[in-house]
Amino acid sequence: MNESNPIRPIEWVGGLDGHVALIEQTLLPEKFKIIRVEDVETMWDAIRRLAVRGAPAIGIAAAMGTVLGVRGCDEGDEAGFRRRLTEVCDYLRTSRPTAVNLFWALERMVKCADDHRGRGVAEISKALLGEAQAIRDEDAAMCRKIGEHGAPLITDGCGVLTHCNAGALATAEYGTALAPMYVAHKLGRAFRVYADETRPLLQGARLTTWELGRAGIDVILICDSTAAVVMREGKVDLVITGADRIAANGDTANKIGTYGLAVLADAHGIPFYVAAPSSTFDLPLADGEGIPIEERDPDEIRRGMGRQTAPDEVSCYSPAFDVTPASLIRGIITERGLIEPVSGASVSAMLGNCEP
Amino acid sequence: MNESNPIRPIEWVGGLDGHVALIEQTLLPEKFKIIRVEDVETMWDAIRRLAVRGAPAIGIAAAMGTVLGVRGCDEGDEAGFRRRLTEVCDYLRTSRPTAVNLFWALERMVKCADDHRGRGVAEISKALLGEAQAIRDEDAAMCRKIGEHGAPLITDGCGVLTHCNAGALATAEYGTALAPMYVAHKLGRAFRVYADETRPLLQGARLTTWELGRAGIDVILICDSTAAVVMREGKVDLVITGADRIAANGDTANKIGTYGLAVLADAHGIPFYVAAPSSTFDLPLADGEGIPIEERDPDEIRRGMGRQTAPDEVSCYSPAFDVTPASLIRGIITERGLIEPVSGASVSAMLGNCEP
Repeated sequence: MNESNPIRPIEWVGGLDGHVALIEQTLLPEKFKIIRVEDVETMWDAIRRLAVRGAPAIGIAAAMGTVLGVRGCDEGDEAGFRRRLTEVCDYLRTSRPTAVNLFWALERMVKCADDHRGRGVAEISKALLGEAQAIRDEDAAMCRKIGEHGAPLITDGCGVLTHCNAGALATAEYGTALAPMYVAHKLGRAFRVYADETRPLLQGARLTTWELGRAGIDVILICDSTAAVVMREGKVDLVITGADRIAANGDTANKIGTYGLAVLADAHGIPFYVAAPSSTFDLPLADGEGIPIEERDPDEIRRGMGRQTAPDEVSCYSPAFDVTPASLIRGIITERGLIEPVSGASVSAMLGNCEP
Repeated sequence: MNESNPIRPIEWVGGLDGHVALIEQTLLPEKFKIIRVEDVETMWDAIRRLAVRGAPAIGIAAAMGTVLGVRGCDEGDEAGFRRRLTEVCDYLRTSRPTAVNLFWALERMVKCADDHRGRGVAEISKALLGEAQAIRDEDAAMCRKIGEHGAPLITDGCGVLTHCNAGALATAEYGTALAPMYVAHKLGRAFRVYADETRPLLQGARLTTWELGRAGIDVILICDSTAAVVMREGKVDLVITGADRIAANGDTANKIGTYGLAVLADAHGIPFYVAAPSSTFDLPLADGEGIPIEERDPDEIRRGMGRQTAPDEVSCYSPAFDVTPASLIRGIITERGLIEPVSGASVSAMLGNCEP
């Protein structure tokens, strides 16, 4: 099963009468299964069930789901086709109502249909498939660029630590935090990755070790609390994590545990990098103070892995994310280049003049 | 089920014809069940199965197991009784061959029998029961003293963070790291404890939250990776952990994750304390460099909680303990008093002149 290319979690197979091939991520790491999605209801369900996950991958799934949903309309009835498109988008929006990329992708599909208004059902359908493919391909290209900008940081013999899964499985291909590793691996560099298991949902254990191992990258799984020791033992030369949201000054919200890792890296003199596309920057946000942090269901801690591991009545504190201040971040790897050092000025120099 | 006293995980009930009442810790936190142990085979099994755990509690279990094992010998045959005692001790030693307290307690029982040589089976039996009780009571008194020396650190309104379970369940009563909390609670102080769940074996989630909650102490369970955020949010005023072994200079080996907590506490200006009886000091050991660290079974990470959470083929790095340098420890709370600041000189001043 070893392949040196990163996995592609979602792809359109064939022409307009084709289907979507999706990795059933809920079965990982126990079972690697690709499911065939042929209608919008199955796609809605796949998004809802987290069979497909990660903001970019969800956007792609929604775009491809739209194409599936408008198939079979009367070729002569463009108005009917447009009504169906609206219906399908409204429906897909309910699959994961907090996923920003979902809305963004659906808007892009509607805009594509608008741009082809009056050209008939067949041509609009073809354009929509092209747009969904473009959303996938652009994401893959963007992740690849992140990988190219980050790969020089990963030198021969070095150790890299990562947290959660900002990998190929969460995007079209390559991932964000893992993209520099895939590119460095392709370039023939030998390095080792330490993957935090990432409680409570264990994305590092379940997904990161699986996809890196499958690509033939040397990966070692550790408990989150072992990161400090691995650093102290001199096994880690840099840390790379993903990001959920980055403020204008570089403060970064990411999966809970990221802030602690950044503090530990700082204490051990290890550079800490964030890898994310420029769309992750929320430039109107001055700093990390303004980032709202949702709390997770306590039962993810109390009975998260099939067995009860804490008393039912115990209170839990389970923030989903934490905020790492820019002062602890050595650099931010984007598809446009490496922002280093990290400050309001350097962020603005890289992103300020372009629509993110 | 709330009681303000700490739990007693193991007690002798009745006279020489009595039994041992033991908390079946393998069922916690799902079920609180006290098992009745009436013969040495059941006690051997309880130690082996981790129904009783924690070095001091295992020592007590072995001592009480000895009393159970020599019951029913011919009252007139002291030589036969002594042969049976040797047999029982040899047998109990095999229950958990790496537990130092087990050997120590059995030696103490044999010495007690030696001290009563020639006084007849009935009197020796009585002396052995007294010795087993003394081992329990001395441990309880020692833990209580640790609690009294540590309680002044826990002031009204403060937040305490702890790791793993250095609690009543691991000792006769009170515990070590948790003892100052029990004493402060008895004194009527209001404070909150943050308990790390403590991967991979989750002793914090399973045991610490259970025993503190039962005693009516305000406890919040967090994932290990959430400790840094809780510190940053100003919720933690001090950290107290237990210790597995302390070198002459104060370097401390304890459950994996302790070192990282100490680094994080230091970065946030939060004092970090270790609580342990003086028997935990290994004075011939100059510093922590010499402490061997065993590695745990990777399957505790890969399929530790009933479900597979990582690929079978992934490599894991799972040290059982880590070593926190004395420079990161504000003080060590012992039954003899508080060692603060921590240095070779202060450790030796507190312990140097006495047999630890």
